[in-house]
Amino acid sequence: MKATAKAHTNIALIKYWGKRNEELILPTNNSLSLTLDGFYTTTTVDFQEDLKADSFELNGIPEQGEAYKRVTAFLELVRKMAGKEVYAHVASDNQVPTAAGFASSASGFAALAAAASKAIGLDLDDKELSRLTRRGSGSSSRSIYGGFAEWQMGEKKDGSDSYAVPIADENHWDIRMAGVVLTSEMKKISSRAGMRRTVETSPFYEGWLKSIPEDLTGIKEAIQEKNFIQVGEIAEANCLKMHATSLGAKPPFTYWLDSTIRVMRQVQKMREQGIPAYFTIDAGPNVKVLYLPEHEAEVERMLREVPGVTDVILSKPGPGVSYL
Amino acid sequence: MKATAKAHTNIALIKYWGKRNEELILPTNNSLSLTLDGFYTTTTVDFQEDLKADSFELNGIPEQGEAYKRVTAFLELVRKMAGKEVYAHVASDNQVPTAAGFASSASGFAALAAAASKAIGLDLDDKELSRLTRRGSGSSSRSIYGGFAEWQMGEKKDGSDSYAVPIADENHWDIRMAGVVLTSEMKKISSRAGMRRTVETSPFYEGWLKSIPEDLTGIKEAIQEKNFIQVGEIAEANCLKMHATSLGAKPPFTYWLDSTIRVMRQVQKMREQGIPAYFTIDAGPNVKVLYLPEHEAEVERMLREVPGVTDVILSKPGPGVSYL
Repeated sequence: MKATAKAHTNIALIKYWGKRNEELILPTNNSLSLTLDGFYTTTTVDFQEDLKADSFELNGIPEQGEAYKRVTAFLELVRKMAGKEVYAHVASDNQVPTAAGFASSASGFAALAAAASKAIGLDLDDKELSRLTRRGSGSSSRSIYGGFAEWQMGEKKDGSDSYAVPIADENHWDIRMAGVVLTSEMKKISSRAGMRRTVETSPFYEGWLKSIPEDLTGIKEAIQEKNFIQVGEIAEANCLKMHATSLGAKPPFTYWLDSTIRVMRQVQKMREQGIPAYFTIDAGPNVKVLYLPEHEAEVERMLREVPGVTDVILSKPGPGVSYL
Repeated sequence: MKATAKAHTNIALIKYWGKRNEELILPTNNSLSLTLDGFYTTTTVDFQEDLKADSFELNGIPEQGEAYKRVTAFLELVRKMAGKEVYAHVASDNQVPTAAGFASSASGFAALAAAASKAIGLDLDDKELSRLTRRGSGSSSRSIYGGFAEWQMGEKKDGSDSYAVPIADENHWDIRMAGVVLTSEMKKISSRAGMRRTVETSPFYEGWLKSIPEDLTGIKEAIQEKNFIQVGEIAEANCLKMHATSLGAKPPFTYWLDSTIRVMRQVQKMREQGIPAYFTIDAGPNVKVLYLPEHEAEVERMLREVPGVTDVILSKPGPGVSYL
């Protein structure tokens, strides 16, 4: 009853920003992401009949705090699905630079869900796996697939129709993403808390939701047609809308630093110089920049010259979940 | 047929951000401001029967471009009201540091409206004067009064019920405002163009409008009670909402610079250190900071130490229009 799985992280181009059900992790809108090569988690789950409790080791270090709680709560779901009361040793190797604002929970839970469900004898297809891993981390539902994936919010109360579907795999189109590292400080307001406060108090939340369908239609069309400018413009505008909603929250907040604005301005400058590049920003200060392979050297150079940038990490589209 | 009037600029605590009628300058929401001492325009209007056209001199320099057009278009309204076809020499002395993002059009048109209407023989009360000057510059409607004033948007199509009313005069409460100068560069998107694009394209505009009545009720109550924290919190949140709306425009835009964020963070830091201070930002990168007289030295010191701040200009509440 042992299995090992590998999953890559993903960055949303149409953001997941708000839950309609906190416990089941059901979102208020569809989101769409690009799975990234190079950033992944490899997890081994070993269910053993004689264990009295789960254990969790991350990069060789035993975890006992919040991370352990999330893992064991997730394994509880897997046990219920399988109808087996058996505990596991979980060992994860996390190759995601969390300091760069790459969400490690996406690859982490996708790898855990894949390894745990296989080890316990569940035979899940991608859709079922996506629905399961969603319970650990919403954005992990998209990491089941390579390339572009869309998390369909679903309508049912029990969440049975809330899972991701593939849009175009990692071989469809080689567009690149640079992770621009500005700070490794923990943000004061977690994504979870930030989206909750925004959903509950921002007068802009309704406008955000209303604007999503058009963004989704446009970006899916652009992905199929490999229209980079259209993908970039929609992704950048979508992230700005997401960040706008938090400025209306009570109390208001922003994840941006002064250097966040400098990187945004530098990306505008790239475009003024004829380099198509667009930014997206998750619930934190760090910026990700979309660009095409032929502009990689210039994009990296221009990002590194921005004061406050401590690192620039480049990535290609990555694959979906695999078993080792 | 000659008169001289003096008017002070004002800074909105509840922002004017969008017109329902561009020609009549009718706003989509009520706004509320503090008139500032120290920043003013003194204007002399001299109607002379033998003149063939208007002339306009600003700080001793004859103007012929956009500024002249706005002045002569405004004088045309005054002539129609008075039923007299007579042209004027207009001389303005502008003591408003426009580079600091203090709106000189507010004091400029309020002084022009007062001097021109008096010179041509119209006997307008404050309400009528506010309604008239609104046609030159919306925010100037509030500069007729000292201290706190509210521009009531009105409902009528002809704008006859759209004018400002006094809330509390300049002697009611000594709260202070620091103008934090970050750049004297012209902004790429004017207030006029910015609000128009936002009204027409932002999914957040409706949420902005819906949130105004509560802000207005709260800040008027706080002004009467001299509750500084309540005034500050509402003003700061209101300005963040205004700036959020532009992030949703198509295409999106922001007036903020990296240094704008640094000043915002510095004001947060003041509060963490026990100094009640709050910021507001108009359609531009510069920041204004509200504080109490007893914290003036500390507020100025902390603002001046922010990298990118080129000047800090302090001000008290100022009086309404006067005739010299």
